Amino acid sequence: MANQQKRTDVNTLGEFGLIDHLTNKHQPKQPSTIRGIGDDAAVIDNGNFKTVISTDMLVEGIHFDLAYTPLEHLGYKAVVVNLSDIYAMNAIPKQITVSMALSNRFSVEALEELYKGILRACSFYNVDLVGGDTTSSLKGLCLSITAIGQGETDKLVYRTGAKVGDLICITGDVGASYLGLQILEREKQIHAKHPDVQPDLEGMDYLIGRQLKPEARKEIIQLFRKAELVPTSMIDISDGLASELFHICTQSGVGAFLEESGVPIHPQAEEMALKFKLDPITCALSGGEDYELLFTIDKKDLDKVKYMPDIFIAGEIVDESHGITLHTKGGNIHSITAQGWQHF
Amino acid sequence: MANQQKRTDVNTLGEFGLIDHLTNKHQPKQPSTIRGIGDDAAVIDNGNFKTVISTDMLVEGIHFDLAYTPLEHLGYKAVVVNLSDIYAMNAIPKQITVSMALSNRFSVEALEELYKGILRACSFYNVDLVGGDTTSSLKGLCLSITAIGQGETDKLVYRTGAKVGDLICITGDVGASYLGLQILEREKQIHAKHPDVQPDLEGMDYLIGRQLKPEARKEIIQLFRKAELVPTSMIDISDGLASELFHICTQSGVGAFLEESGVPIHPQAEEMALKFKLDPITCALSGGEDYELLFTIDKKDLDKVKYMPDIFIAGEIVDESHGITLHTKGGNIHSITAQGWQHF
Repeated sequence: MANQQKRTDVNTLGEFGLIDHLTNKHQPKQPSTIRGIGDDAAVIDNGNFKTVISTDMLVEGIHFDLAYTPLEHLGYKAVVVNLSDIYAMNAIPKQITVSMALSNRFSVEALEELYKGILRACSFYNVDLVGGDTTSSLKGLCLSITAIGQGETDKLVYRTGAKVGDLICITGDVGASYLGLQILEREKQIHAKHPDVQPDLEGMDYLIGRQLKPEARKEIIQLFRKAELVPTSMIDISDGLASELFHICTQSGVGAFLEESGVPIHPQAEEMALKFKLDPITCALSGGEDYELLFTIDKKDLDKVKYMPDIFIAGEIVDESHGITLHTKGGNIHSITAQGWQHF
Repeated sequence: MANQQKRTDVNTLGEFGLIDHLTNKHQPKQPSTIRGIGDDAAVIDNGNFKTVISTDMLVEGIHFDLAYTPLEHLGYKAVVVNLSDIYAMNAIPKQITVSMALSNRFSVEALEELYKGILRACSFYNVDLVGGDTTSSLKGLCLSITAIGQGETDKLVYRTGAKVGDLICITGDVGASYLGLQILEREKQIHAKHPDVQPDLEGMDYLIGRQLKPEARKEIIQLFRKAELVPTSMIDISDGLASELFHICTQSGVGAFLEESGVPIHPQAEEMALKFKLDPITCALSGGEDYELLFTIDKKDLDKVKYMPDIFIAGEIVDESHGITLHTKGGNIHSITAQGWQHF
């Protein structure tokens, strides 16, 4: 190995830049590959139906902290995170595979807890666990789940279909999960210094629940079917509203005009953000892990969503030249940048 | 948490016992789930064709050692290992997803090497990379790959179909990969003590190649199609011939009679086993990572495989009551036990 070898830190590219950098020369060749890298899930042709595949990896110390994450919740959430990607394609998840690497500090009883959560999620979302791989690790727990879903050809929704004039919709409040995480982190610090102090989580159950026990919005997909509504684009909010909106705009070649007053924030989140001396809208935009759906619809479909529960209209798609902006309650206009994945 | 809490070491169950213990209450409910846990891959119904899904996780320090594994080879092998599972269903791999967790000691250039291998395998095996997840880890590299294939309903081959009188076939020599690993481990120890000594790998290229650059037997599946041969059962040899034969027998409810003289061992493997003071047949039975296919055929199909290159007939399926036995060249009979996965 040459001493002069170039070394570029992975940080410099970010997740999406990195993936693009590593895979942009790869051209799918299989006729059955309808959509590859770059959406919530891949799409594979199987005749009348399309198979939709999504995969996510969760790493101890990065994505979860077992100091405050019960293993059953972790198992449940790991499944939900993946199913959310399938719903974000307007498809129905049907199967999952679960792979994990774990060190010998995990007992069979610990794994039973983890699987209890995994299987509870399978049962609730009506998906089958069909395979996986279990192996050891030198340190920590690494969970990789792949979800397989089915979608009708003319109903699949990508990130690429938003067009000028479309309405931007969100299926629920955002920012709460991030604030739940801040509380859990704070309590962990306090507990480390004062092991006798019992955590005081009074009145924070909603925020902590959003962090530890998120749900994927399967009922929204059912509502779409009933209303015969097909969004023009859709993505799930895992990295944060700003980052997801950025993806839709970049991949659709459009801009967005987001109204602060249209972004749903839970009263507990609002209150807790202020306690942490954080701006609630910043938490809502950059927080992540809410697993709500962000989607756009043609204006003519407004009547279809108007009376749907849990649908908030938060803005409008505009021409690319206008960029992606937030219009604050105070009348200011801010540029929105992608602040997604910052694990590195 | 009660102090009296039961703690069962994961070791006590083994991989297959563990998976069974954790998932045996899970009953697939989706009509599209044809086969779930317990074969090389899951099978999902998509009308005329079946989708076949397999997933594998590779962990640094457990499955590979970067001290002697070039990253490009690692990427290539990680794909091959998964494709091998799809071929073992007599199906054709079409797509893969790649997830990885890596610590910040990996540079972009290192990942480029890894992806070079991944994409080279995609190109060679004609599969598309359609998605994945890249995240960080606190320590080491963890790779999880899912392969998606397509199989015709009446040509899929499971582990469950072997029947008394069937012939046991192997597609190539076994044990070489394990011996390649022993050599690499030995050179690593020598290098640690004497950094100036250059490794002497003269005449060991075959063994090391089998360990670092294995291939999946895609051409065998093509030969089966040409010959209109459908094996009665099949599995790929990842954990070792003994372990795989054990799976087929247990899952088919049969016994096996394996002839030592019928088990192909490469001359380099034979020689190296003796140098390491190991029994060559033990290496062949328990070595693993050969990625050859082990399959059974009805006796009436003997003519179809007789002149196929690389097909070795190594024994016969017998009644379950006879157990799984090895008939040595010296005329002795030994019981074969599953000695597969021993990572824990």
